[in-house]
Amino acid sequence: MRAKSAIILDLKFARDNLKQTIQTFFPDREIIDLAEPDNAARDLSGIDYAVVWKPDADLFRRAPDLKVLFSGGAGVDHIMSVEGIPDIPIVRFVDRNLTTRMSEWIVLQCLIHLRRVLPYLEQQKKRVWSEFLQPEASEITVGLMGLGVLGLDAAAKLRALGFTVIGWSRTKKEIEGMETFDATGMNDFLSRTDFLVGLLPLTPETTGLYNHDLFGRLRQGGALGKPVFINAGRGKSQNEADLHIALTDGTLGGASVDVFAVEPLPEASPLWGLDNLVITPHAAAPSEPVALFQLMQEQIGRFERGETLQFTVNTAAGY
Amino acid sequence: MRAKSAIILDLKFARDNLKQTIQTFFPDREIIDLAEPDNAARDLSGIDYAVVWKPDADLFRRAPDLKVLFSGGAGVDHIMSVEGIPDIPIVRFVDRNLTTRMSEWIVLQCLIHLRRVLPYLEQQKKRVWSEFLQPEASEITVGLMGLGVLGLDAAAKLRALGFTVIGWSRTKKEIEGMETFDATGMNDFLSRTDFLVGLLPLTPETTGLYNHDLFGRLRQGGALGKPVFINAGRGKSQNEADLHIALTDGTLGGASVDVFAVEPLPEASPLWGLDNLVITPHAAAPSEPVALFQLMQEQIGRFERGETLQFTVNTAAGY
Repeated sequence: MRAKSAIILDLKFARDNLKQTIQTFFPDREIIDLAEPDNAARDLSGIDYAVVWKPDADLFRRAPDLKVLFSGGAGVDHIMSVEGIPDIPIVRFVDRNLTTRMSEWIVLQCLIHLRRVLPYLEQQKKRVWSEFLQPEASEITVGLMGLGVLGLDAAAKLRALGFTVIGWSRTKKEIEGMETFDATGMNDFLSRTDFLVGLLPLTPETTGLYNHDLFGRLRQGGALGKPVFINAGRGKSQNEADLHIALTDGTLGGASVDVFAVEPLPEASPLWGLDNLVITPHAAAPSEPVALFQLMQEQIGRFERGETLQFTVNTAAGY
Repeated sequence: MRAKSAIILDLKFARDNLKQTIQTFFPDREIIDLAEPDNAARDLSGIDYAVVWKPDADLFRRAPDLKVLFSGGAGVDHIMSVEGIPDIPIVRFVDRNLTTRMSEWIVLQCLIHLRRVLPYLEQQKKRVWSEFLQPEASEITVGLMGLGVLGLDAAAKLRALGFTVIGWSRTKKEIEGMETFDATGMNDFLSRTDFLVGLLPLTPETTGLYNHDLFGRLRQGGALGKPVFINAGRGKSQNEADLHIALTDGTLGGASVDVFAVEPLPEASPLWGLDNLVITPHAAAPSEPVALFQLMQEQIGRFERGETLQFTVNTAAGY
């Protein structure tokens, strides 16, 4: 019987003890951590598995026998943008924890804008006691772009809080109790949306999608007066110059953004200076290494028993 | 047949058009608005109904024939604290809208502390990109004091977001899926609580209840490190000097308070100056006049048909 394949570890995010942690899930496999200088020139042929976040292009040349690739995050644009990715299954990181954290962040940001947290905190500093217009959740229509695992969980929780929720996805999805739209219904979807929540993957179609033209098609004159933009997907999907203009020219009443084209967001970015924008440092839903390695353990088990892999990426669609 | 009784309107809160609004619900009854100078000396005998918010003590002397009293808010301490209240049914204001607004506020405040909104906004001003410890909702136990209509709705929504929720009420309540405590279990309840949410009515027992001693009995060393106090009940239930001490000596990590012993909170209050406290101007769940008058219409209909009134106050318990 062939020895169990090693696993290549190539996670370019700052976490301690990644190798020790993954080893506990795979005690009988070698873990090859590409962050170790000794592995820089190592022969990676004959290895079946790799878990990656922002892999180098030469990984796939160096490891020509990979059978399954695991993504270290929910999005896979960090893989899909690399030249020469092999035609093998890519398993995305789907995790209960990542999903619930993302929904916490989305519900929080929707409530922050609904209940006027930024102006209340501003007037608190001035020791002023005065009530602002703060409509009820049911008066606000949240338009969710992206109806995968994350979008559906967020939708359910937003509805539990009372928000009216509609959904958009590239291809039409039928979802119990939620009105949905696809590419052909984009205008209708935007014109009925008070809070736009972006959860789209980064693909050529979604690059720069959230621009001034799109912000201008959101509903004006809803219960809060002006629309709000909330992005928890990918930074390169938003045109940041346009976002700045829309937040200052009154096209948008507010925004919450967790992701940026360049991260960390450069200190010189004018977005930092806006008082109607909430910035979080790509912290809406951190990937938990333990959950990632648990998922790999399950999926490698399925693969080696000849069962179907779960959570695989549609490489034609790019996500 | 006797003419329909007039209704006394004595709502000391600043809303426009209260008289016109209530008149639309009772087109065939006279509305006597005590805010009008002409009514200052008017004979109020023979009148069956009054809707009040902070009534004057002489109302009950002037209107000796009242059969039902309606409270303009969810709490009734503004009535119970008045000398000489008659022994007639008092109907509290229970409203779907008021309930959902309160739950929005409570969920928002729990998420604000869980997801470290105050430190994130602080560092945003300094253009700093750095992630804080932000545990998952399920790692936090929210201890809800007050298990009436508002408490149960908030509990359900907090649980939908993933929080662990336990409950306390003066007399033990059995609630599906939630561990509950009563007066004898106060210590246990507090020692397991990370976020204390106060929804208690103001009674002699709850006056000054939230003091430094109580804050000191909350769990230290939970997932966020320090406990958090969230008060949406009544201001006189909290000792504000103690709250200030607890927020500065490390007994509490943070707080959100919507209600104060004196409202508006005086400009000189040192609470305004704290950076780990969220202050809202008694705006968690505003009473909607339309919903109040709708409830009165229903209950007066029931009363005059000889049916049982709903939502009546237990005057012995004081709420």
